[in-house]
Amino acid sequence: MTRIDERQTNELRPVQMDVDYLIHPEGSVLITVGQTKVICTATIEEKVPPFLRGQGKGWVTAEYSMLPRATNSRNRRESSAGKIGGRTMEIQRLIGRALRAVVDLEKLGERTLWIDCDVIQADGGTRTASITGAFVAMTMAIGKLDLTAFPVTDFLAATSVGIDGEHGAILDLNYVEDSSAEVDMNLVMTGAGHFVELQGTGEEATFSRTQLNEMLDLGESGIRQLISKQKEVLGELANRVGEEVKSSL
Amino acid sequence: MTRIDERQTNELRPVQMDVDYLIHPEGSVLITVGQTKVICTATIEEKVPPFLRGQGKGWVTAEYSMLPRATNSRNRRESSAGKIGGRTMEIQRLIGRALRAVVDLEKLGERTLWIDCDVIQADGGTRTASITGAFVAMTMAIGKLDLTAFPVTDFLAATSVGIDGEHGAILDLNYVEDSSAEVDMNLVMTGAGHFVELQGTGEEATFSRTQLNEMLDLGESGIRQLISKQKEVLGELANRVGEEVKSSL
Amino acid sequence: MTRIDERQTNELRPVQMDVDYLIHPEGSVLITVGQTKVICTATIEEKVPPFLRGQGKGWVTAEYSMLPRATNSRNRRESSAGKIGGRTMEIQRLIGRALRAVVDLEKLGERTLWIDCDVIQADGGTRTASITGAFVAMTMAIGKLDLTAFPVTDFLAATSVGIDGEHGAILDLNYVEDSSAEVDMNLVMTGAGHFVELQGTGEEATFSRTQLNEMLDLGESGIRQLISKQKEVLGELANRVGEEVKSSL
Amino acid sequence: MTRIDERQTNELRPVQMDVDYLIHPEGSVLITVGQTKVICTATIEEKVPPFLRGQGKGWVTAEYSMLPRATNSRNRRESSAGKIGGRTMEIQRLIGRALRAVVDLEKLGERTLWIDCDVIQADGGTRTASITGAFVAMTMAIGKLDLTAFPVTDFLAATSVGIDGEHGAILDLNYVEDSSAEVDMNLVMTGAGHFVELQGTGEEATFSRTQLNEMLDLGESGIRQLISKQKEVLGELANRVGEEVKSSL
Amino acid sequence: MTRIDERQTNELRPVQMDVDYLIHPEGSVLITVGQTKVICTATIEEKVPPFLRGQGKGWVTAEYSMLPRATNSRNRRESSAGKIGGRTMEIQRLIGRALRAVVDLEKLGERTLWIDCDVIQADGGTRTASITGAFVAMTMAIGKLDLTAFPVTDFLAATSVGIDGEHGAILDLNYVEDSSAEVDMNLVMTGAGHFVELQGTGEEATFSRTQLNEMLDLGESGIRQLISKQKEVLGELANRVGEEVKSSL
Amino acid sequence: MTRIDERQTNELRPVQMDVDYLIHPEGSVLITVGQTKVICTATIEEKVPPFLRGQGKGWVTAEYSMLPRATNSRNRRESSAGKIGGRTMEIQRLIGRALRAVVDLEKLGERTLWIDCDVIQADGGTRTASITGAFVAMTMAIGKLDLTAFPVTDFLAATSVGIDGEHGAILDLNYVEDSSAEVDMNLVMTGAGHFVELQGTGEEATFSRTQLNEMLDLGESGIRQLISKQKEVLGELANRVGEEVKSSL
Repeated sequence: MTRIDERQTNELRPVQMDVDYLIHPEGSVLITVGQTKVICTATIEEKVPPFLRGQGKGWVTAEYSMLPRATNSRNRRESSAGKIGGRTMEIQRLIGRALRAVVDLEKLGERTLWIDCDVIQADGGTRTASITGAFVAMTMAIGKLDLTAFPVTDFLAATSVGIDGEHGAILDLNYVEDSSAEVDMNLVMTGAGHFVELQGTGEEATFSRTQLNEMLDLGESGIRQLISKQKEVLGELANRVGEEVKSSL
Repeated sequence: MTRIDERQTNELRPVQMDVDYLIHPEGSVLITVGQTKVICTATIEEKVPPFLRGQGKGWVTAEYSMLPRATNSRNRRESSAGKIGGRTMEIQRLIGRALRAVVDLEKLGERTLWIDCDVIQADGGTRTASITGAFVAMTMAIGKLDLTAFPVTDFLAATSVGIDGEHGAILDLNYVEDSSAEVDMNLVMTGAGHFVELQGTGEEATFSRTQLNEMLDLGESGIRQLISKQKEVLGELANRVGEEVKSSL
Repeated sequence: MTRIDERQTNELRPVQMDVDYLIHPEGSVLITVGQTKVICTATIEEKVPPFLRGQGKGWVTAEYSMLPRATNSRNRRESSAGKIGGRTMEIQRLIGRALRAVVDLEKLGERTLWIDCDVIQADGGTRTASITGAFVAMTMAIGKLDLTAFPVTDFLAATSVGIDGEHGAILDLNYVEDSSAEVDMNLVMTGAGHFVELQGTGEEATFSRTQLNEMLDLGESGIRQLISKQKEVLGELANRVGEEVKSSL
Repeated sequence: MTRIDERQTNELRPVQMDVDYLIHPEGSVLITVGQTKVICTATIEEKVPPFLRGQGKGWVTAEYSMLPRATNSRNRRESSAGKIGGRTMEIQRLIGRALRAVVDLEKLGERTLWIDCDVIQADGGTRTASITGAFVAMTMAIGKLDLTAFPVTDFLAATSVGIDGEHGAILDLNYVEDSSAEVDMNLVMTGAGHFVELQGTGEEATFSRTQLNEMLDLGESGIRQLISKQKEVLGELANRVGEEVKSSL
Repeated sequence: MTRIDERQTNELRPVQMDVDYLIHPEGSVLITVGQTKVICTATIEEKVPPFLRGQGKGWVTAEYSMLPRATNSRNRRESSAGKIGGRTMEIQRLIGRALRAVVDLEKLGERTLWIDCDVIQADGGTRTASITGAFVAMTMAIGKLDLTAFPVTDFLAATSVGIDGEHGAILDLNYVEDSSAEVDMNLVMTGAGHFVELQGTGEEATFSRTQLNEMLDLGESGIRQLISKQKEVLGELANRVGEEVKSSL
Repeated sequence: MTRIDERQTNELRPVQMDVDYLIHPEGSVLITVGQTKVICTATIEEKVPPFLRGQGKGWVTAEYSMLPRATNSRNRRESSAGKIGGRTMEIQRLIGRALRAVVDLEKLGERTLWIDCDVIQADGGTRTASITGAFVAMTMAIGKLDLTAFPVTDFLAATSVGIDGEHGAILDLNYVEDSSAEVDMNLVMTGAGHFVELQGTGEEATFSRTQLNEMLDLGESGIRQLISKQKEVLGELANRVGEEVKSSL
């Protein structure tokens, strides 16, 4: 039985990444995953936060936001509310942490990469689309630096998996599926097939070890496909990712 | 002598308006003026703010924001800063006030139109592009309401004019021109050629009545062109704008 | 037909400026315009904001506030609300910008002039009274500095004009007039008769070019009178205003 | 040996109270104590805070603020800082609590008295001048209500006393004295000579019971004089203060 | 090879739960896990948040905080900073979500359980200790309600697991271990052995599926031990947990 | 007639101080006064606030907070509210000021003592218990510094006294007594029997000089007992308090 949007349980939504989408940032991508659209930009700042000063190391940090009408009903702007909500904080901490797992901060040198993920239109999976797109924007920005050793050590992409009463384990949930799923899990993995983050939540429900394994299998296959899209849009630059690792073999 | 981007002093930058740019909002436009790009959306809420309750009248209000990398260097998000800056407040108050001048709030009924203008890319004139685009998004959203009397009484568009040491009065300043202009003026006008707002500022400079008149002439011609673009993209709906006024003649 | 307070359409309200109103500030004035009363003070700080450091230039900045019972009903303090409202921001940005147009910031040297305008009693025109009074407080404070070249290049005053269904164009609106006017315009002009700021707003209305010209004529005549009051209260110091300009002729 | 301003140790500074100083508030006084000047206003609001609703009782609450240049060097506005400082909070809680001690909240009925004390010029003793002036503004505002039983039960005034190395106990400290005093005490007392508040602080010092008694004697005599000034400026209305108490004897 | 504190890789730290630790709350526990000490309280409020009103369902929400000197160096209070940090938000959202997975909100009825977890002393694992302790405080508070159907459907406890260069997979990390671990995973599981939350993070590292499985095995065994401690301290009340589930078998 | 908890009017509640209650802080005490429990910690930071830099003097500052369920009904956290309330500010300013009265800041050297008082359980008198406990935590922390001259010049303790319709003057009010007392006074005194702070408030009431004297007598006797407890728990260290003063006799 196919899903609400005619997909198979193990099928990603159509993915597109428009690189160099904006003129000002050092790296920028408009990533589209089904109806979800996120503008990801990367900005290079030639200094690091106070806690890292003088250590010869760089930093990667991320901010995430939604336009008020990215969603079906209008959300109040966090600037009007005067503070950033818990969900936004969790997501932007996740994006930054995930990207740092594939950046050699010493090779980056004393500079900060600011990643901005702004959701223009939301239909589920905005945090995972942000990570997948942010990796591309970040790699493009780093590609513009004049560095002998390329600090990006591996590819990185993210997707969601879940469990739904009707279909069991499903890949890449859209908004409707996400709202009704019993279990929701976000996976961030590398080109080498290792986990960077894995966050599974039973929404007023629980899940067994067998169900966990089914979800992990689906997620791995989805992430392999996303990484092959990233290689395509990065072109030549894709070869520099992990070059240090390869040459050291 | 032509301007930095080869334009004549009385020439607008290329303008484009992509309507129905997003799937969720009742009205949405991506307006492009030269390199400036703004997503304008209109949301209908079936209630009014407390100060208007029970009066049978509606309300139009606007919010304005820039993505952090809409500009050449990254701006801190106002949500992180925890408050909205003075410039943002001025602009969003201006957008709301301008739109209300061409909406018959009683015909609108007890509902609020939330206008959101989010600058994706900035190259001067973001507030005037916001007004021109917001008018279209608002009119489209109102067009979806089932109203016998159409509450939009006239077209509305905005542009900037300025005075520059080299060229004298110039129309529709881009960012470089805006930064070096001695005088900067924003004009909001109606289809009938009347003023709604006029804000002229000598930036550490002053200007004479003659210079004011030159700027007003340029501004009027620019606004006429913008309004004819609005009519194009609104199609059939353009005929309902001001229909009450015309029929009462 | 005379106005609500028996004035002619082209008549200012009675204006009084009590200089040296307070003992602590370097310059202070209590300006009274009809029933509107504003305490304007000028403070000299021997440093500049970060963005100007090391450039040998000074800065002029302004803050504006109302006592809670300056108005007919009590307003909540902005300190209790925890943030400054949009109207306050607009006004204080206007005051600062206007004053900077008549100060040669290089002659001022690396110091900041803090202008504080605190409305004790409001009856319309508080922002224009603030500018007119602030000019005097600022000039007095600068007069206490030991500078060879006097940095104030010209006089500066402000008033409001408007259009009202009954009287047409009127000068210097009080609160009742301001509330019912169809168009409201604030003008800031110099002793030389040039514009510094001009902000006209159709309050849910619009205005023609002819009406604009009538308002500008009224405004110019009002500002001439205000500047002659400023000269009176400044006494000897009035001669130093623009002395550089005159001597360079 | 006389004090810095030629006063005796038991001498108050000159006190003046200009009643009906402003046109809008229900009660208003400009109180001057030496060089200290405070505008006190009283506003009547026909409702009470949530915790008192439906109990048939009223409320008295106070807010206190200083203009930025009320003092010798400019203080940052609390509205700019985005929060109210600890000193301001302490003072406004003190003023409200003190006034409530002489108001029969049941006779006041379900309404709130908002007291605003805005310091225009500070030279020590701003909190005690605020209380003394606020009592007058409050009584005038209550006098405008149509109440059979007058809710003000007694007079109320405040002053400061202190101990200074050179003079021992002194009354009504100005700023210079307050800065150098070893002990600083604020006293709030009633017409009947009872204490309402007594706050004594050894500023990095301590004081003995004997010194406490000397200060209390000075304070009582000062407050008696202040209350007799209040009676003067309140005129006829002074007779209504405590009328219930007297008639019940 | 044993760990820094002499434990085996699969050994929990000593755990103690002092129930009824405070006199005021409906449920309270001081949970001690090694040197980590958290006061967990449960408060019953007889209403629900706006989004749940009128649905006959209850709510469980949690707040988490640390005393400034719970840690080795003093942390600034979040009340002084004026906002709650991202880490705190993530933790308190996690605690609330986890508890809701074992509460039948309909059987709870229209009331809110406020869970407060205040860390008195921190030595790693404060969020998992909070969940384990909060479950006990919550169950005790619910036990005081007069409900026929007991809304707690299963036991719930949490622990951390990680991977460390020297020992491989380890259970229940203390602060020193947590700081040096390559991978850190928090597990929340039920009495039935199902997952409620699983959050694994490679700290600037990644982990394989095999390593994931080792960690899950360790975590399950630790949680079984914690749940048997919970049963001990809950005494009789432990029998009511999941009674509905059992009786329906 | 005895009091609600069987005490005599001049009887303190049972007092206990558990020193070194926590492992991380330089000084820590859990003080218990009846049912009131406060964790007091002292942190030494090797720098001073900006206003003291370069003067060779130290600083003592305090923060005070309550756990949400320290009281009978749950209080909203100040971190959630985003600001510190007036009562909290008053109390923490009082604690800091009181402690500074018995510390020779020059002997302390350029370092800051951060005092944290966190109320775990409240039953009246939390601010006075905080001062009494904070003195012990502070003295212990200072005792760990390698200083030749001991900067603590005298003992310091605090208690409350009040007047109650039934018993007259009473010592050390619990919550129920505090709520119904007509007059409430907090006293902070030194080992030498001098006052540091004295804050008396008629809660919608007033008090006479005779009543003041009765309260002062009770308070002095209570504080003598508290100081003798402090000496006990400080052990050897108690001898260093005031050693400079004694040796200079």
